[in-house]
Amino acid sequence: MAATQPLIRRLCIIGVGLIGGSLARALREASAVGEVVGAGRGEDNLRAAVRLGVVDRYDTDVSRAVADADVVVVAAPLGAISSVLRAIAPHLAPDCVLTDVGSAKGSVVADVERIYGAIPPHFVPGHPIAGTEKSGVEASFATLFQRRRVILTPLAETAVTAYRLIRRMWELTGAEVVDMGVRHHDAVLAATSHLPHVLAYTLVDTLARLDDRAEVFRYAAGGFRDFTRIASSDPQMWHDICVANREQLLEMLTLFSADLAQLTEAIRSDDRAAILAAFQRAKRARDNLYLD
Amino acid sequence: MAATQPLIRRLCIIGVGLIGGSLARALREASAVGEVVGAGRGEDNLRAAVRLGVVDRYDTDVSRAVADADVVVVAAPLGAISSVLRAIAPHLAPDCVLTDVGSAKGSVVADVERIYGAIPPHFVPGHPIAGTEKSGVEASFATLFQRRRVILTPLAETAVTAYRLIRRMWELTGAEVVDMGVRHHDAVLAATSHLPHVLAYTLVDTLARLDDRAEVFRYAAGGFRDFTRIASSDPQMWHDICVANREQLLEMLTLFSADLAQLTEAIRSDDRAAILAAFQRAKRARDNLYLD
Repeated sequence: MAATQPLIRRLCIIGVGLIGGSLARALREASAVGEVVGAGRGEDNLRAAVRLGVVDRYDTDVSRAVADADVVVVAAPLGAISSVLRAIAPHLAPDCVLTDVGSAKGSVVADVERIYGAIPPHFVPGHPIAGTEKSGVEASFATLFQRRRVILTPLAETAVTAYRLIRRMWELTGAEVVDMGVRHHDAVLAATSHLPHVLAYTLVDTLARLDDRAEVFRYAAGGFRDFTRIASSDPQMWHDICVANREQLLEMLTLFSADLAQLTEAIRSDDRAAILAAFQRAKRARDNLYLD
Repeated sequence: MAATQPLIRRLCIIGVGLIGGSLARALREASAVGEVVGAGRGEDNLRAAVRLGVVDRYDTDVSRAVADADVVVVAAPLGAISSVLRAIAPHLAPDCVLTDVGSAKGSVVADVERIYGAIPPHFVPGHPIAGTEKSGVEASFATLFQRRRVILTPLAETAVTAYRLIRRMWELTGAEVVDMGVRHHDAVLAATSHLPHVLAYTLVDTLARLDDRAEVFRYAAGGFRDFTRIASSDPQMWHDICVANREQLLEMLTLFSADLAQLTEAIRSDDRAAILAAFQRAKRARDNLYLD
């Protein structure tokens, strides 16, 4: 009996961290890949990826790592994507499908356009809405994407075959794949992810610089722990996201800051109806979202 | 063999909700109370409190409920404390110890001083740092205060016997009792609790008023759920807290808003070193606090 052909004969993952590593693990469990080649700058991490069985082999030289790959997933930090794309462009096989997992899509699409001179049909921008505050291949696990959403932002130039392959790849990880326009993706993520991270980082930073900070933090209750969890995320990664999605993030920061200034003024002027109305609107919206 | 005398012969709890109900349950489990009398405005809730065995009986008239009580715990919403204190003042037994659980202490102390003309020696202001987003007696449970901190803010006028009784009462619930000055308490809570709630409410309210809000919320990831959990808290309660702790909260809002404006400017002007430094400081402070 002949073995079924896997969906992807040779997969190259550039950046075998939480996301790249979990994708490799999930595709292996789904028997969807033949060989997995890892690449990236941290050789310790790549060695761990081989030891953990996440990749079959690795090459620290990305131009060699992508050779003869059917699919290349750029899972490098957002700030490194541009240089990775530039390094691999001349070495991709003619029918290789290229995708990425960047948290902002406009900047990646602009990078690709700049490097290739036009959007190549085999490029499918993607973004799995999944992750934890942890990073590195040691933190990766096969079920990370189960019941999570993966947003693809295919372009007018994107070939249907390339799009379908990447869609199928993510479906096999257990994710729900949805399509979105590039700008819309970046606006939605600025609102629900990038802005909250900026707020959490700023709050902890504000409190950490109070004179009596040790004492202040000692009396933080459970709500504070949940509220500030995302401030334990990788600073470099979130720096990259703020830089990459600057315009959309600034728009959300402007809206939020105006609302906060208005509420602050309501508190200052003892406008109790305004305070209560804002809190009631928020609770109603939050309760409509989650049952916890 | 004579039964051991309980710590409190008759306890009156005004406001048998999450906090008041959990206190009654914990003290019963510790065999620290003889009779527990409930009071408050919601008769359905009081009936449920009797049915659940949280209180022995109730009286919707607080002036009658406090009769002959050894300890009266005012666990009413912060905004109702003033009128409760006024209603019960003429009816407390001469040696009755009065305490409260308000999330802001300056306003309660000012209320007491206004009503009594001076701080009475039997008054011990308190604040258990515990709670969930739920409310009402149905949400109460005996272990709510275990390993949580209860802050007492005794005043120069407070009698040692009264202070010791309330301290012992909270210790018997499994809480760690600490003392703090009134103003310091209000500053610490403004920083770690009141400000985060205002930010969470404002964020959800900002997003809920976006044109495409349904779509925006659909793509919120796990971090968003944790970050906004406190926006499901009782709006009236948090309105009361913002009103009661106005000055300290405004001070924290001013600090936070200045830091957010500075970070926003760093993002706008692409000052990458400033963005990264702020995020790194915050992560370091958060990681020093919690291991999750």
